[in-house]
Amino acid sequence: MQDYSTFKNLKINFPSQFVLHVELNRPTKLNAFDRISWQELHACFKQIALDSDVRAVVISGAGKLFNAGIDLNNLQGINNNAEEKDFARRALNTRKELLVTQDSISSVEQCDKPVIAAIHNGCIGAGVDLITACDIRYCSKDAFFSVKEVDLGLAADVGTLQRLPKIVGNNSLIRELCLTGRNFSSTEALNIGLVNKVLSTKEEALTEALKTANIIASKSPIAILSTKHLLNFSRDHSVAEGLAYTAAWNGAMLNSSDLMEAVDATMGRRKPKFSKL
Amino acid sequence: MQDYSTFKNLKINFPSQFVLHVELNRPTKLNAFDRISWQELHACFKQIALDSDVRAVVISGAGKLFNAGIDLNNLQGINNNAEEKDFARRALNTRKELLVTQDSISSVEQCDKPVIAAIHNGCIGAGVDLITACDIRYCSKDAFFSVKEVDLGLAADVGTLQRLPKIVGNNSLIRELCLTGRNFSSTEALNIGLVNKVLSTKEEALTEALKTANIIASKSPIAILSTKHLLNFSRDHSVAEGLAYTAAWNGAMLNSSDLMEAVDATMGRRKPKFSKL
Amino acid sequence: MQDYSTFKNLKINFPSQFVLHVELNRPTKLNAFDRISWQELHACFKQIALDSDVRAVVISGAGKLFNAGIDLNNLQGINNNAEEKDFARRALNTRKELLVTQDSISSVEQCDKPVIAAIHNGCIGAGVDLITACDIRYCSKDAFFSVKEVDLGLAADVGTLQRLPKIVGNNSLIRELCLTGRNFSSTEALNIGLVNKVLSTKEEALTEALKTANIIASKSPIAILSTKHLLNFSRDHSVAEGLAYTAAWNGAMLNSSDLMEAVDATMGRRKPKFSKL
Amino acid sequence: MQDYSTFKNLKINFPSQFVLHVELNRPTKLNAFDRISWQELHACFKQIALDSDVRAVVISGAGKLFNAGIDLNNLQGINNNAEEKDFARRALNTRKELLVTQDSISSVEQCDKPVIAAIHNGCIGAGVDLITACDIRYCSKDAFFSVKEVDLGLAADVGTLQRLPKIVGNNSLIRELCLTGRNFSSTEALNIGLVNKVLSTKEEALTEALKTANIIASKSPIAILSTKHLLNFSRDHSVAEGLAYTAAWNGAMLNSSDLMEAVDATMGRRKPKFSKL
Amino acid sequence: MQDYSTFKNLKINFPSQFVLHVELNRPTKLNAFDRISWQELHACFKQIALDSDVRAVVISGAGKLFNAGIDLNNLQGINNNAEEKDFARRALNTRKELLVTQDSISSVEQCDKPVIAAIHNGCIGAGVDLITACDIRYCSKDAFFSVKEVDLGLAADVGTLQRLPKIVGNNSLIRELCLTGRNFSSTEALNIGLVNKVLSTKEEALTEALKTANIIASKSPIAILSTKHLLNFSRDHSVAEGLAYTAAWNGAMLNSSDLMEAVDATMGRRKPKFSKL
Amino acid sequence: MQDYSTFKNLKINFPSQFVLHVELNRPTKLNAFDRISWQELHACFKQIALDSDVRAVVISGAGKLFNAGIDLNNLQGINNNAEEKDFARRALNTRKELLVTQDSISSVEQCDKPVIAAIHNGCIGAGVDLITACDIRYCSKDAFFSVKEVDLGLAADVGTLQRLPKIVGNNSLIRELCLTGRNFSSTEALNIGLVNKVLSTKEEALTEALKTANIIASKSPIAILSTKHLLNFSRDHSVAEGLAYTAAWNGAMLNSSDLMEAVDATMGRRKPKFSKL
Repeated sequence: MQDYSTFKNLKINFPSQFVLHVELNRPTKLNAFDRISWQELHACFKQIALDSDVRAVVISGAGKLFNAGIDLNNLQGINNNAEEKDFARRALNTRKELLVTQDSISSVEQCDKPVIAAIHNGCIGAGVDLITACDIRYCSKDAFFSVKEVDLGLAADVGTLQRLPKIVGNNSLIRELCLTGRNFSSTEALNIGLVNKVLSTKEEALTEALKTANIIASKSPIAILSTKHLLNFSRDHSVAEGLAYTAAWNGAMLNSSDLMEAVDATMGRRKPKFSKL
Repeated sequence: MQDYSTFKNLKINFPSQFVLHVELNRPTKLNAFDRISWQELHACFKQIALDSDVRAVVISGAGKLFNAGIDLNNLQGINNNAEEKDFARRALNTRKELLVTQDSISSVEQCDKPVIAAIHNGCIGAGVDLITACDIRYCSKDAFFSVKEVDLGLAADVGTLQRLPKIVGNNSLIRELCLTGRNFSSTEALNIGLVNKVLSTKEEALTEALKTANIIASKSPIAILSTKHLLNFSRDHSVAEGLAYTAAWNGAMLNSSDLMEAVDATMGRRKPKFSKL
Repeated sequence: MQDYSTFKNLKINFPSQFVLHVELNRPTKLNAFDRISWQELHACFKQIALDSDVRAVVISGAGKLFNAGIDLNNLQGINNNAEEKDFARRALNTRKELLVTQDSISSVEQCDKPVIAAIHNGCIGAGVDLITACDIRYCSKDAFFSVKEVDLGLAADVGTLQRLPKIVGNNSLIRELCLTGRNFSSTEALNIGLVNKVLSTKEEALTEALKTANIIASKSPIAILSTKHLLNFSRDHSVAEGLAYTAAWNGAMLNSSDLMEAVDATMGRRKPKFSKL
Repeated sequence: MQDYSTFKNLKINFPSQFVLHVELNRPTKLNAFDRISWQELHACFKQIALDSDVRAVVISGAGKLFNAGIDLNNLQGINNNAEEKDFARRALNTRKELLVTQDSISSVEQCDKPVIAAIHNGCIGAGVDLITACDIRYCSKDAFFSVKEVDLGLAADVGTLQRLPKIVGNNSLIRELCLTGRNFSSTEALNIGLVNKVLSTKEEALTEALKTANIIASKSPIAILSTKHLLNFSRDHSVAEGLAYTAAWNGAMLNSSDLMEAVDATMGRRKPKFSKL
Repeated sequence: MQDYSTFKNLKINFPSQFVLHVELNRPTKLNAFDRISWQELHACFKQIALDSDVRAVVISGAGKLFNAGIDLNNLQGINNNAEEKDFARRALNTRKELLVTQDSISSVEQCDKPVIAAIHNGCIGAGVDLITACDIRYCSKDAFFSVKEVDLGLAADVGTLQRLPKIVGNNSLIRELCLTGRNFSSTEALNIGLVNKVLSTKEEALTEALKTANIIASKSPIAILSTKHLLNFSRDHSVAEGLAYTAAWNGAMLNSSDLMEAVDATMGRRKPKFSKL
Repeated sequence: MQDYSTFKNLKINFPSQFVLHVELNRPTKLNAFDRISWQELHACFKQIALDSDVRAVVISGAGKLFNAGIDLNNLQGINNNAEEKDFARRALNTRKELLVTQDSISSVEQCDKPVIAAIHNGCIGAGVDLITACDIRYCSKDAFFSVKEVDLGLAADVGTLQRLPKIVGNNSLIRELCLTGRNFSSTEALNIGLVNKVLSTKEEALTEALKTANIIASKSPIAILSTKHLLNFSRDHSVAEGLAYTAAWNGAMLNSSDLMEAVDATMGRRKPKFSKL
């Protein structure tokens, strides 16, 4: 069993076998992203990617709200390398910082294990970047969302503008939300398909997320990893390219004992048992 | 008039001029896909592509349900080339099989005539692969759907993971459906936009499908073929690439007598009459 | 202040600071697109792109309806270069005409300032091409839409087949609408996400559009331009490509005084004041 | 052993184990491509793709020259569907014909077995299309080449404009050759890298081709098939995309007994022996 | 006959029918690119694109050398918008300037008529950008080239880094040349395939260019335009994409009377005569 | 000054200011790649990417030859996870290993500082993968190369099949080399453009590499980094995409004081002095 206890801004445990719960845990700062948060998120999901005891992940926020976005001190760090007088060098420095934060969020998408976000209350700015890198989103009724960056004088740059339109398949309301930065409610989030379900409370949202995580964790890990991996690949390629990659991928993956086990268990009306990855 | 009577698992007829009805017709096996089904679907739609008497196609299932997915015997055929001890050779063999099934489903998309699915009761696994390669989907109230593959220990590989997210423009609920394999109802299918309409019964779904097919068949065949062809192309390319291809394509297509006939008929409030392709 | 008074088919004014109102103004012809309309639309939005007094644009139609589509005389011009007997030369001529109309519509998308369409009554054919190149769409209750081209014997070729499915993220109902050419109502447009809101009257739709335009115009112009630019780029690229481009872009853009001004204004609960682009 | 004796325009035999020799065999017509040639080439290479007795292919021409290009009767067939008065329908018909010829040539590239062309004397028009779909090219000193299409009033459309610049990596001399249609000699072909070697006579070119084919046929068929497949994929994708596909592909292919056999044979200084695909 | 006499930095005439000679004509400034040069080059090639009297273009430089690159005053204009204190705004301004110069060079590539450069003596910096947008390059023995930008403290940004490696198909020596900025001779240019031929003098280079231009101008204009257009398209796409576009394009273009005229003239051993585009 | 002394298989020093020399230093194993080598190469070039004291890198091999390829023990490690009986899991494990080795080689390409390889004697298998990720290649006369993988029963998968054809722009001889695995000499390497120059001895090759590195290190670091970065980007994108990215990139980079310094130094005939990145 790997150790996830060393993180400062993340609180992590196994609520059930193969299911990992990652809690954003900087409640006094409303879980805002500072430099440590970016680093830990990245390290955590790199570890998850290689941990065969993890088959599904739930992510939630401790305290009053899910995530208040970027820590303004961190933003000023990005902007304010004021000692550098040369514009080109400043731009390169800023880009370097951005790549770090992008890689941090992208590690969630690339860990190849399904990640379910359970959101309550505010999910703002970088919080939206984070949840759009997850696979499934549940929220409580009191949840609200904001692509807030425009109010800070910048365009969102850690994934929202890339992933949000591809999640909700809507480039109309999304543009209004991104251009005005206004809050939108859990109901609106449900209607556009950003969240799959709205639950009454934070606790229920978390319970529902864990329930789905358990279902996923009970399936063939080959099937689950492949499904997430291929959905990501296919989102970014033409249908023909996606099919060609899938044929190469499943050429190997179909030759798994998981198929026989799954079919046999179904026929025997018993729970299948799959070995680890 | 071409002959469509030689298929074993498909029952095919012309309910009206220019409209072809293709019925999955292996009801004792719940229309499950075996090797013959893959071959015949492919052969049938290759024939349709070249048949100037066909301008629109309706596809439905005979018997209790629309389609129960892959025939487990067929799946085992793919997986169980157990005599081959070398892994690389097994993977190549499996890939070869997969390419055949992918080509079969893709022939529906590539026949360049609009295809309307009329779905009733179960539409499972490969059944979902099939309907996502169609252009328009109607279903009866009792219809239910399942991206079932994950329960067989594999990731869907005949088109669902590629086409479904691009049809419904939702990568949130879709991921839940693909990762859990759970059934979803006709209502849910309507809400996410997988089906255009829910009708009371199988008969009504079929009637509606034929009605729309007739409308389409009454239009300029140049306009219809081009619209389907360009929608497919544009789905898989950037807006700029789609426009460039369209300009090259329509450079020729606008020089059709169909334009004059269409405009003249509209003005004369008469039905236009278009020659065959 | 630039001069927008020279256009014949467009009536243009500044209803408030930084907000430009472009009115399609050929009401006796139902604002149908003739050759002059294509040219003026292009010229107008090229001018807007370079005008630092414009931060948001509202587009609406004068008279009975928003837009009746292409002027049939113009269509015949495209089709009927009948003196040219050689097919290849006719196709090249037609393509050349098409590229001009495509560039006209695309100039709306590429002006890098958000454009909001306020639609009333009919929005037909080329009218749909136009609004799909806008960022946000509001309409009045009486609005109806039609991808009419198929009834004229052609496939839409000025942007609808490329942009519409990417706006509404639906390739199911959209195919029915494009293949049948049938009218669809403001309610249906709202349900599929083509419009963001349905208002009671044309006046209210316009008022709402101007209100949103004012909100957008009050934000940092760097943030707004970047958001639109990056949403367009990201629509047409993979997530990874979108992130890479964003990092290069925002490497420079984050080093703007707008960030400090935005944060300072937020903290001081005052309206921020941004310099022009 | 499969039967290759039914072709009319192709003469095929096995000069040695695992090596197939395909001879263009319509010498009285200078091996020009007529409708039967297109069909047979396609059928032949589809058969080769599935024939585990073939590991390398050599292609040459019988009679006076390698290939005189398209049979003018065939070209007129493409152009002269003169009974069709509607331009759009003629364009669609022509496109359909073109796709058939393109698929014929592309089947050489897609058979996944290396193909070596041994060229003598003239290689003109469609002959160039053919050899650019091969992997390796040898020729005799008297060989000459011409991208002749421009002299027939058309742009090459069966692969030369796509593949030739990617083979020789030169878009400068290539443009001159394609735009002027002039002959170029075996020496020039060698200098730009179109052919790998120039031999004295047709016989020597054929001997050299067979020698290389035998070397290739002696290697692991997994390694050879993968190398050709991945070179084709990588030519058409970015480096990053090529690497990602390769990792998925070789994840399976490295788990082949061929590795152990190859290493063991090398160490034992003996010829390795690989089982069939 | 169109008028090309209004340009200040370009001297233009028709040395023979259908062949246009464009001479860079700012010899006292070594033909360096200033703002007027960028504008005129763009305007000139936009005009050429629509001029049916032009079928091939030769471009050369008046005076001592072909082109000395960007005028340093112009470069400072790009860099030195020093009154703008906000970095983001400066970057946007600079980008706007760059897009203008890029469009200017790209207009040569996009005019759809073959362009032949005849180079003598120095071809430096922006001069290399210019010739890489041409189709064919001849030079005199005394010609030398330099990707000079690195010595001005910037990366080349008007096309060299994009087009040069795709012309010469070499990413090894090219990188040395781009990273060191060193001069390279006509011989080296010939060896890497940047130029097609080295002639003794400027006059001979020009004569050779005109000779090739005349050959091209004598061919079917449909065939020539299509060949250039398809070579450009295919350079930037996969083989499969290139073939698909070509099939759509030539579906129309093969239905030209130019085919019959070309074949008939060949058989009658007479010069073909093609009508204008 | 950063510390590069901790590597076991790499010996690293600064022969002159801003130039780093990385020596493959496992001579008793002919510098073959074992697990430690992959890790160290990756770590080393990640460090280089962030080290502002490095502006150019030279890489060479200690001992008898440059690089003998993959250590066979390492290869068996990849292949021989024989305890894993499930094929799918073995394939996933192997893929995971491959991604590590690919990332190792790719770190050379992605460090954004030019890397020059000085090759002597054998450069085999993974050695070719390594040098194709460099920017410039020099070798001694006794150098020979082999894409050896096919002789080990596998297709090259760490970059050669992706990068080599794009470096030499030749898909003809390259295919022969990759399919036969035969050795090719320094002369052949020069002729196809794999190496830029052949020197008499290893020492001269290294001296020449250092000389070029010094020239590069004397230029504006903004210009050099941008040139490498944009050449990499442009290799993998269309010309239009490359230009668009360049405009965004150089929008910032042109606003560097390096331009003024470079121009001023040129005019004053003095050596320019650029601040660090």
